[in-house]
Amino acid sequence: MTEILERATIDFLLYDWLRLDEILARDTYADHTRGSVDAMLDTAARMAVSEYLPCFKKGDRQPPYQDEDGAHVIPELRPLIKSYAEAGFFAADFPQEVGGLGVPYLVQTAATAFFSAANVPALSYSKLAVGNARLIAQFGSDQQREVFVTPQFEGRWTGTMALSETQAGSSLGDIVTRALPDGEDELGVRYRVSGTKMWISSGDHDASDNIVHLVLAKIPGPDGKLIPGTKGISIFIVPKFIPLADGAMIRNDVVLAGLNHKMGFAAVTNCLLNFGEGTRFRPMEKAGAVGWRIGEVGQGLPIMFSMMNEARIGVGLGAAMMGYRGYRLALDYAKTRKQGRAPGARDPATPQIAIIEHADVKTMLLACKAFSEGAMALSLYCSKLLDEAASAATAKVRAEADALLGLLTPVAKAWPSEYGLAANDIAIQVHGGYGYTRDFDVEQLYRDNRLNPIHEGTTGVQAIDLVGRKILRDSVGALDLLTGRIETAITQAAPGLAGEAERLRQVVRELRSAVDIIRRPGSKAVALANATSFLRAFGHTVVGFLWLSIGNAAHATAAESSLKHGKISACKYFFTFEIPKVTAWLAPIVTQNQLTLEVRGEWL
Amino acid sequence: MTEILERATIDFLLYDWLRLDEILARDTYADHTRGSVDAMLDTAARMAVSEYLPCFKKGDRQPPYQDEDGAHVIPELRPLIKSYAEAGFFAADFPQEVGGLGVPYLVQTAATAFFSAANVPALSYSKLAVGNARLIAQFGSDQQREVFVTPQFEGRWTGTMALSETQAGSSLGDIVTRALPDGEDELGVRYRVSGTKMWISSGDHDASDNIVHLVLAKIPGPDGKLIPGTKGISIFIVPKFIPLADGAMIRNDVVLAGLNHKMGFAAVTNCLLNFGEGTRFRPMEKAGAVGWRIGEVGQGLPIMFSMMNEARIGVGLGAAMMGYRGYRLALDYAKTRKQGRAPGARDPATPQIAIIEHADVKTMLLACKAFSEGAMALSLYCSKLLDEAASAATAKVRAEADALLGLLTPVAKAWPSEYGLAANDIAIQVHGGYGYTRDFDVEQLYRDNRLNPIHEGTTGVQAIDLVGRKILRDSVGALDLLTGRIETAITQAAPGLAGEAERLRQVVRELRSAVDIIRRPGSKAVALANATSFLRAFGHTVVGFLWLSIGNAAHATAAESSLKHGKISACKYFFTFEIPKVTAWLAPIVTQNQLTLEVRGEWL
Repeated sequence: MTEILERATIDFLLYDWLRLDEILARDTYADHTRGSVDAMLDTAARMAVSEYLPCFKKGDRQPPYQDEDGAHVIPELRPLIKSYAEAGFFAADFPQEVGGLGVPYLVQTAATAFFSAANVPALSYSKLAVGNARLIAQFGSDQQREVFVTPQFEGRWTGTMALSETQAGSSLGDIVTRALPDGEDELGVRYRVSGTKMWISSGDHDASDNIVHLVLAKIPGPDGKLIPGTKGISIFIVPKFIPLADGAMIRNDVVLAGLNHKMGFAAVTNCLLNFGEGTRFRPMEKAGAVGWRIGEVGQGLPIMFSMMNEARIGVGLGAAMMGYRGYRLALDYAKTRKQGRAPGARDPATPQIAIIEHADVKTMLLACKAFSEGAMALSLYCSKLLDEAASAATAKVRAEADALLGLLTPVAKAWPSEYGLAANDIAIQVHGGYGYTRDFDVEQLYRDNRLNPIHEGTTGVQAIDLVGRKILRDSVGALDLLTGRIETAITQAAPGLAGEAERLRQVVRELRSAVDIIRRPGSKAVALANATSFLRAFGHTVVGFLWLSIGNAAHATAAESSLKHGKISACKYFFTFEIPKVTAWLAPIVTQNQLTLEVRGEWL
Repeated sequence: MTEILERATIDFLLYDWLRLDEILARDTYADHTRGSVDAMLDTAARMAVSEYLPCFKKGDRQPPYQDEDGAHVIPELRPLIKSYAEAGFFAADFPQEVGGLGVPYLVQTAATAFFSAANVPALSYSKLAVGNARLIAQFGSDQQREVFVTPQFEGRWTGTMALSETQAGSSLGDIVTRALPDGEDELGVRYRVSGTKMWISSGDHDASDNIVHLVLAKIPGPDGKLIPGTKGISIFIVPKFIPLADGAMIRNDVVLAGLNHKMGFAAVTNCLLNFGEGTRFRPMEKAGAVGWRIGEVGQGLPIMFSMMNEARIGVGLGAAMMGYRGYRLALDYAKTRKQGRAPGARDPATPQIAIIEHADVKTMLLACKAFSEGAMALSLYCSKLLDEAASAATAKVRAEADALLGLLTPVAKAWPSEYGLAANDIAIQVHGGYGYTRDFDVEQLYRDNRLNPIHEGTTGVQAIDLVGRKILRDSVGALDLLTGRIETAITQAAPGLAGEAERLRQVVRELRSAVDIIRRPGSKAVALANATSFLRAFGHTVVGFLWLSIGNAAHATAAESSLKHGKISACKYFFTFEIPKVTAWLAPIVTQNQLTLEVRGEWL
């Protein structure tokens, strides 16, 4: 079997392209070397293949079910969560002072890429817990960290983010879950939470000993009413089991009301959770889910959103790696499946050729490669920005990295979600009829990956974030920073990529013109109406920049290799077949198209 | 519930746009009037909703299963097949002299559109039988027609096309199924067929009394060897049950070897069939599936391919209507689902608005509409060409229609398959998380429709047909005919669509330049390598032409109406957001890009 994720590609991207060696040389990472990173990635690659991949299909074929004890998942998941934590991956990038390994985020992302290539749904349980633990570690009290983070670090407990309600998905300001003050204890100010949360991934299951929910809820005013909008939202730790001082745990008033049955991503439970019904569980003889506030009253959304960069990059990486696995499967299939003959070969008595020899199949594989490796590169690039923002030598460089990261985060979420899926679509097409059957993994990857443009902010929400916040309110000059980095890649273009560099210069010029139009006074409504088209143009420009930069790095490698030619070919593919689309996507922006503002609902 | 297919749209397309009234005025259709057509469409609409729609989901949730008697399907299918035939739809467009109703093909397509909007998989059993019956009716003997076509007309039997084998999917010349002469009887020259056929849709099931297979096989030469390539292929009628002279039927040597389990389209059995194994059934005490040749030896492929226009338009129509149903579901959802507020509304205490009010959702719905109605229009347009080719007043007009149809057929198959699916993808996105659950039909439509870019010739195969045969060997000047029709639509553009007309003129110019490059001596290999990109450009240009033409027809309607504004808006959407992509897809052709010819498999 081919490697689930080509190690040579990861090494090339980490060291030849992103210069991880320079990051590792910083004092912050004094305990880490290329040797220790290599060992970590070796372990990730081994575990991905030996533990995660074998239950990829089973998780789909034996989806979770619900009985009166709650949700049940395949038994493979519990040991996976445990071994992931025990091998140090859970808290790999957490600072050593809170119990982590303190590796660069870039290294953590590279390790995650291996697990993700094997089985994103299985990995999700751990990754959702990481997000939960990261928030509590950053904003919680020492006691809260001790009680709720440590067991997650150890892979014994897991965690969720409980934001959405049936009437409040993208519009979180409309949540109606309530939190009523209920005294105070060593874990902080205590509340009783009541309400119903929808779409809670890993919200209930039997793969860990406890589930720590981070719940957005509103504290009613003296009149008993909730403050409208996002300002009224606070955030609470609400565990499934309440840990008592003596080490025992009692059941909290949190009940699984139902499982959503999804097209894909089946291994991950997706739950409707009732908090505070008081019918089955009444902790300390009272209805209401016991929870402890984190941070100040009304700070729920800012706290939650401070985790957003990592969360969105994480979703993007998962989508990228599902696309990548599809690419690798299609590649293997195309090399072995024989069908047809070369266009010139007129003798039907000659043997059929491997379909990888057909130009159309090669085009599809190049698209798969350019999409999935481009998406992976984008995730790695943004991960490096997180490291830059955290540990670069000067405050200026750190601030710049942070600004750039803010600008790129909507792209880092949306582009891999759209193009990882596109890679999976193509992977099915390469397989022909076989790819449409449940015998091949590519169909499951396609179903699984269709989730990603929806959750953690839809593509449309990312577009509004990009245009409405990052482009229109670019107080830090993030777009100029990006343009500067692109200009550097263009200036340093290898001679063999001069044409690509010139094309990139041209589309950046078009993009900047479009931004000038967007930023004109009075243009906001039209700009927001066409935001998704702008996001597509912007995303392709960013990935074009990354491919040029990767192409440059490939040219700079001394030895001739398939890897080198492959990266340069994917770069050229992207510029030939994909970059011309930028102009098309910018057309509605450049012409300030008002169509969707003028069209009336009843005409549709 | 909204209409499954908006009748006003169908009437508008048939009469205002395609001038069905003029066709009905011809002597050929003397028995038909707008009144009789209306009644037929009324029946189709009623049956679609009352009989086809109710089992749409059940067909997915209770997929066919296999036991020793063969494949079993949901019990709803048998009466559907019967009632479809009894209502006259099966043979609606067949000439009256062979037992049909003799309606224009365009009317038949419009009727099919209603059934397809409700349940394409259920309809497939009848439609595969129609294709089978049409071939036998055209190429079979009187006796063969009597025995094998009549019971299909009556909805008692069904039929298949058995072309593919595991080693021969797109490359039919490589089939190895054999037919050995076995005498002659009143049904013609008899053979014993042996071999294994793969991917046979409705190849076995219990929803009809018999299944008539049309099997491609090779007759060995005197040396026992098969003639390599497509020239050696003949075509045979091989029924599951052999009808005897006394009316009894005995089981033929055709055995279901396995069912393919697919991502979608589950209600339709997809079979691996063994012919002539001789283990379970030995008709007349001998191994070998009994079959009768149709047409001359070696004419199997030309005969089969003479049905290709109808077959491919049919697949396109199904894909279009699945996309259309997704659009209508998304529209209904968007009108009722409340989420968020208008960009200017700052007061979070105001009620949430229906999501159709959001510009991004409106853009998605416009895309859905432009894709699915555009695809439907393409199917109808090509159906009218079939009528023109059959019954237009002069030989010249008939020949022109036939030439145009040949040019458009790959587009009529591929474009709806790609963009009907795109509409389903968007329909999920409009639904948000709900669309990803199995509770909503849009997820099933997305899985079902993913089949269409694969079967009946993949998108890549259509591209090779378009470039290799229709563009490079355009002896009849089909492209000039198309360009002429487009020019007429541009010249007649309504004043409100002058900008769209000008943009269309521009892309046609670009397309013609690309064709000039393709047709240069020595350009064939590069042109074929980039054929799929050309197909995309060509397909969008064709659909752009149709939308302009529809927009013109809408402008010409006297009364102001939502329908009129809706068609014009979809036309404008297509020109603003989609037509600019043509330039991008032509880029590899214009630059004669050799990338995929130069890239080596091992680089990928």
